[in-house]
Amino acid sequence: MGPGDTVTSFIQAIEGNDLERALELLDPEVEYDNVPIAKVHGPDAVRNILAPFLAGCSEVEWVVHRQVEQDDGDGSGTVMNERTDRFRMGEGEHARWVEIPLAGLFAVRGGRIVLWRDYFDDATFRTQLTGG
Amino acid sequence: MGPGDTVTSFIQAIEGNDLERALELLDPEVEYDNVPIAKVHGPDAVRNILAPFLAGCSEVEWVVHRQVEQDDGDGSGTVMNERTDRFRMGEGEHARWVEIPLAGLFAVRGGRIVLWRDYFDDATFRTQLTGG
Repeated sequence: MGPGDTVTSFIQAIEGNDLERALELLDPEVEYDNVPIAKVHGPDAVRNILAPFLAGCSEVEWVVHRQVEQDDGDGSGTVMNERTDRFRMGEGEHARWVEIPLAGLFAVRGGRIVLWRDYFDDATFRTQLTGG
Repeated sequence: MGPGDTVTSFIQAIEGNDLERALELLDPEVEYDNVPIAKVHGPDAVRNILAPFLAGCSEVEWVVHRQVEQDDGDGSGTVMNERTDRFRMGEGEHARWVEIPLAGLFAVRGGRIVLWRDYFDDATFRTQLTGG
Protein backbone atom coordinates (compact mmCIF):
# COMPACT_ATOMS: atom_id res chain seq x y z
CA MET A 1 0.00 0.00 0.00
CA GLY A 2 1.58 3.28 -1.12
CA PRO A 3 1.34 6.55 0.83
CA GLY A 4 -1.49 7.76 -1.41
CA ASP A 5 -3.49 4.63 -0.51
CA THR A 6 -2.99 5.35 3.19
CA VAL A 7 -4.34 8.88 2.75
CA THR A 8 -7.27 7.61 0.68
CA SER A 9 -8.11 5.04 3.38
CA PHE A 10 -7.92 7.75 6.03
CA ILE A 11 -10.33 9.98 4.12
CA GLN A 12 -12.73 7.09 3.49
CA ALA A 13 -12.78 6.30 7.21
CA ILE A 14 -13.60 9.95 8.03
CA GLU A 15 -16.37 9.99 5.42
CA GLY A 16 -17.69 6.69 6.77
CA ASN A 17 -17.97 8.17 10.28
CA ASP A 18 -15.39 5.65 11.53
CA LEU A 19 -13.07 7.97 13.42
CA GLU A 20 -11.38 5.14 15.32
CA ARG A 21 -10.42 3.44 12.05
CA ALA A 22 -9.05 6.77 10.80
CA LEU A 23 -7.00 7.25 13.98
CA GLU A 24 -5.41 3.80 13.49
CA LEU A 25 -3.84 5.18 10.32
CA LEU A 26 -2.03 7.91 12.27
CA ASP A 27 1.46 7.51 13.69
CA PRO A 28 1.66 7.80 17.51
CA GLU A 29 3.71 10.97 16.99
CA VAL A 30 1.46 12.48 14.30
CA GLU A 31 1.38 16.25 13.93
CA TYR A 32 -2.03 17.61 12.86
CA ASP A 33 -1.66 21.21 11.72
CA ASN A 34 -4.64 23.35 10.76
CA VAL A 35 -2.33 26.07 9.51
CA PRO A 36 -4.35 29.22 10.24
CA ILE A 37 -5.64 27.90 13.58
CA ALA A 38 -3.36 25.58 15.56
CA LYS A 39 -1.41 22.34 15.54
CA VAL A 40 -1.67 19.37 17.89
CA HIS A 41 0.30 16.15 18.35
CA GLY A 42 -0.79 12.55 18.77
CA PRO A 43 -3.92 10.58 17.83
CA ASP A 44 -5.68 11.41 21.11
CA ALA A 45 -5.35 15.13 20.41
CA VAL A 46 -6.69 14.57 16.89
CA ARG A 47 -9.66 12.68 18.37
CA ASN A 48 -10.33 15.55 20.79
CA ILE A 49 -10.63 17.95 17.86
CA LEU A 50 -12.47 15.78 15.34
CA ALA A 51 -14.88 13.79 17.53
CA PRO A 52 -17.00 16.73 18.79
CA PHE A 53 -16.93 18.39 15.38
CA LEU A 54 -17.95 15.26 13.48
CA ALA A 55 -20.64 14.53 16.08
CA GLY A 56 -22.36 17.71 14.90
CA CYS A 57 -22.48 16.52 11.29
CA SER A 58 -25.13 14.31 9.73
CA GLU A 59 -22.99 13.77 6.61
CA VAL A 60 -19.32 14.23 5.77
CA GLU A 61 -17.79 14.30 2.29
CA TRP A 62 -14.18 15.09 1.49
CA VAL A 63 -14.14 15.54 -2.27
CA VAL A 64 -10.61 14.95 -3.60
CA HIS A 65 -10.16 16.95 -6.79
CA ARG A 66 -6.51 16.03 -7.28
CA GLN A 67 -4.01 13.93 -5.36
CA VAL A 68 -0.29 13.66 -6.07
CA GLU A 69 2.15 11.38 -4.28
CA GLN A 70 5.85 10.76 -4.03
CA ASP A 71 6.24 7.09 -3.13
CA ASP A 72 9.49 6.46 -1.23
CA GLY A 73 8.74 2.74 -0.78
CA ASP A 74 8.01 0.76 2.41
CA GLY A 75 4.65 2.54 2.75
CA SER A 76 6.39 5.90 3.11
CA GLY A 77 6.26 9.11 1.11
CA THR A 78 4.63 12.48 0.63
CA VAL A 79 1.06 13.08 -0.51
CA MET A 80 -0.63 16.35 -1.38
CA ASN A 81 -4.23 16.79 -2.38
CA GLU A 82 -6.72 19.45 -3.33
CA ARG A 83 -10.05 18.91 -1.61
CA THR A 84 -13.41 20.36 -0.78
CA ASP A 85 -14.25 19.14 2.72
CA ARG A 86 -18.04 19.22 3.12
CA PHE A 87 -19.92 18.87 6.42
CA ARG A 88 -23.70 18.70 6.65
CA MET A 89 -24.57 20.43 9.90
CA GLY A 90 -27.79 21.23 11.72
CA GLU A 91 -31.10 19.44 11.43
CA GLY A 92 -34.35 19.67 9.53
CA GLU A 93 -34.96 22.96 7.80
CA HIS A 94 -31.82 24.40 9.44
CA ALA A 95 -29.54 21.75 7.91
CA ARG A 96 -26.85 23.14 5.63
CA TRP A 97 -23.56 22.16 4.02
CA VAL A 98 -20.40 23.83 5.27
CA GLU A 99 -17.74 23.61 2.54
CA ILE A 100 -14.02 24.29 2.90
CA PRO A 101 -11.76 24.51 -0.17
CA LEU A 102 -8.29 23.46 0.92
CA ALA A 103 -4.99 21.82 0.11
CA GLY A 104 -3.67 19.02 2.30
CA LEU A 105 -0.17 17.74 2.89
CA PHE A 106 0.47 14.29 4.33
CA ALA A 107 3.82 12.77 5.25
CA VAL A 108 3.46 8.99 5.56
CA ARG A 109 5.94 6.64 7.23
CA GLY A 110 5.47 2.88 7.21
CA GLY A 111 1.79 3.10 6.37
CA ARG A 112 0.99 5.68 9.07
CA ILE A 113 0.45 9.41 8.68
CA VAL A 114 3.08 11.35 10.66
CA LEU A 115 2.15 14.83 9.41
CA TRP A 116 -1.25 16.09 8.30
CA ARG A 117 -1.32 19.76 7.41
CA ASP A 118 -4.28 21.57 5.81
CA TYR A 119 -4.01 24.99 4.17
CA PHE A 120 -7.25 26.99 3.94
CA ASP A 121 -8.78 30.38 4.55
CA ASP A 122 -10.02 30.53 8.12
CA ALA A 123 -12.60 33.26 7.48
CA THR A 124 -14.18 31.21 4.67
CA PHE A 125 -14.67 28.39 7.18
CA ARG A 126 -15.85 30.45 10.16
CA THR A 127 -18.34 32.52 8.20
CA GLN A 128 -20.10 29.33 7.17
CA LEU A 129 -19.89 27.77 10.62
CA THR A 130 -21.77 30.70 12.13
CA GLY A 131 -24.33 30.56 9.32
CA GLY A 132 -23.20 34.00 8.10
CA MET B 1 11.57 18.90 -18.76
CA GLY B 2 8.93 17.47 -16.43
CA PRO B 3 6.06 19.50 -14.95
CA GLY B 4 7.96 19.92 -11.68
CA ASP B 5 10.86 21.48 -13.57
CA THR B 6 8.50 23.95 -15.22
CA VAL B 7 7.16 25.01 -11.83
CA THR B 8 10.68 25.28 -10.40
CA SER B 9 11.75 27.46 -13.35
CA PHE B 10 8.68 29.64 -12.83
CA ILE B 11 9.49 30.15 -9.15
CA GLN B 12 13.15 30.89 -9.91
CA ALA B 13 12.11 33.55 -12.43
CA ILE B 14 9.84 35.19 -9.84
CA GLU B 15 12.61 35.14 -7.23
CA GLY B 16 15.04 36.56 -9.80
CA ASN B 17 12.73 39.50 -10.45
CA ASP B 18 12.27 38.36 -14.06
CA LEU B 19 8.49 38.53 -14.35
CA GLU B 20 8.53 38.41 -18.16
CA ARG B 21 10.48 35.13 -18.08
CA ALA B 22 7.98 33.76 -15.58
CA LEU B 23 5.05 34.80 -17.78
CA GLU B 24 6.57 32.92 -20.73
CA LEU B 25 6.05 29.73 -18.72
CA LEU B 26 2.29 30.34 -18.53
CA ASP B 27 -0.18 29.00 -21.06
CA PRO B 28 -2.14 31.70 -22.95
CA GLU B 29 -5.27 30.39 -21.22
CA VAL B 30 -3.75 30.12 -17.74
CA GLU B 31 -6.05 30.42 -14.74
CA TYR B 32 -4.42 32.09 -11.72
CA ASP B 33 -6.54 31.50 -8.65
CA ASN B 34 -5.74 33.08 -5.28
CA VAL B 35 -8.42 30.98 -3.62
CA PRO B 36 -9.60 33.31 -0.82
CA ILE B 37 -9.37 36.44 -3.00
CA ALA B 38 -10.07 36.05 -6.71
CA LYS B 39 -9.10 34.29 -9.93
CA VAL B 40 -7.97 35.78 -13.23
CA HIS B 41 -7.23 34.36 -16.67
CA GLY B 42 -4.34 34.89 -19.08
CA PRO B 43 -0.72 36.03 -18.68
CA ASP B 44 -1.61 39.72 -19.05
CA ALA B 45 -3.98 39.50 -16.09
CA VAL B 46 -1.27 37.73 -14.07
CA ARG B 47 1.16 40.52 -14.96
CA ASN B 48 -1.39 43.14 -13.84
CA ILE B 49 -1.53 41.52 -10.41
CA LEU B 50 2.11 40.61 -9.88
CA ALA B 51 3.97 43.54 -11.46
CA PRO B 52 2.78 46.28 -9.06
CA PHE B 53 3.09 43.96 -6.08
CA LEU B 54 6.61 42.81 -6.92
CA ALA B 55 7.62 46.41 -7.68
CA GLY B 56 7.07 47.13 -3.99
CA CYS B 57 9.48 44.39 -2.91
CA SER B 58 13.26 44.70 -2.58
CA GLU B 59 13.64 40.92 -2.26
CA VAL B 60 11.43 37.91 -3.04
CA GLU B 61 11.96 34.36 -1.82
CA TRP B 62 9.57 31.47 -2.37
CA VAL B 63 10.85 28.76 -0.07
CA VAL B 64 9.65 25.35 -1.32
CA HIS B 65 9.43 22.98 1.62
CA ARG B 66 8.02 20.07 -0.36
CA GLN B 67 7.07 19.54 -3.99
CA VAL B 68 5.28 16.50 -5.40
CA GLU B 69 4.53 15.88 -9.06
CA GLN B 70 2.58 13.53 -11.25
CA ASP B 71 4.40 13.42 -14.58
CA ASP B 72 2.02 12.57 -17.43
CA GLY B 73 4.74 12.88 -20.09
CA ASP B 74 5.16 15.44 -22.90
CA GLY B 75 5.88 18.17 -20.33
CA SER B 76 2.42 17.73 -18.81
CA GLY B 77 1.22 16.79 -15.35
CA THR B 78 0.18 17.99 -11.92
CA VAL B 79 2.45 19.60 -9.34
CA MET B 80 1.68 20.53 -5.75
CA ASN B 81 4.03 22.25 -3.36
CA GLU B 82 4.17 23.58 0.17
CA ARG B 83 5.84 26.99 0.30
CA THR B 84 6.55 30.03 2.37
CA ASP B 85 6.38 32.99 0.00
CA ARG B 86 8.48 35.82 1.46
CA PHE B 87 8.43 39.44 0.28
CA ARG B 88 10.76 42.10 1.66
CA MET B 89 8.73 45.30 1.60
CA GLY B 90 9.39 48.88 2.62
CA GLU B 91 12.71 50.63 2.87
CA GLY B 92 15.35 51.44 5.45
CA GLU B 93 14.27 51.01 9.02
CA HIS B 94 10.71 50.31 7.88
CA ALA B 95 11.75 47.32 5.74
CA ARG B 96 10.18 44.06 6.81
CA TRP B 97 9.52 40.54 5.51
CA VAL B 98 5.92 39.59 4.73
CA GLU B 99 5.63 35.79 4.87
CA ILE B 100 2.74 33.67 3.58
CA PRO B 101 2.53 29.95 4.38
CA LEU B 102 0.64 28.30 1.53
CA ALA B 103 0.06 25.28 -0.64
CA GLY B 104 0.18 25.63 -4.43
CA LEU B 105 -1.36 23.57 -7.18
CA PHE B 106 -0.06 23.72 -10.75
CA ALA B 107 -1.49 21.95 -13.78
CA VAL B 108 1.10 21.91 -16.56
CA ARG B 109 0.43 21.17 -20.23
CA GLY B 110 3.23 20.93 -22.79
CA GLY B 111 5.70 22.82 -20.60
CA ARG B 112 3.30 25.67 -19.78
CA ILE B 113 1.32 26.26 -16.60
CA VAL B 114 -2.42 26.22 -17.36
CA LEU B 115 -3.64 26.39 -13.75
CA TRP B 116 -1.92 28.02 -10.77
CA ARG B 117 -3.93 27.92 -7.58
CA ASP B 118 -2.65 28.96 -4.14
CA TYR B 119 -4.39 28.03 -0.88
CA PHE B 120 -3.63 30.30 2.10
CA ASP B 121 -5.22 32.22 4.93
CA ASP B 122 -6.11 35.69 3.70
CA ALA B 123 -6.06 37.31 7.16
CA THR B 124 -2.52 36.01 7.80
CA PHE B 125 -1.44 37.80 4.63
CA ARG B 126 -3.37 41.06 5.08
CA THR B 127 -2.37 41.55 8.70
CA GLN B 128 1.28 41.53 7.66
CA LEU B 129 0.69 43.72 4.61
CA THR B 130 -0.75 46.45 6.77
CA GLY B 131 2.09 46.05 9.26
CA GLY B 132 -0.34 44.89 11.96
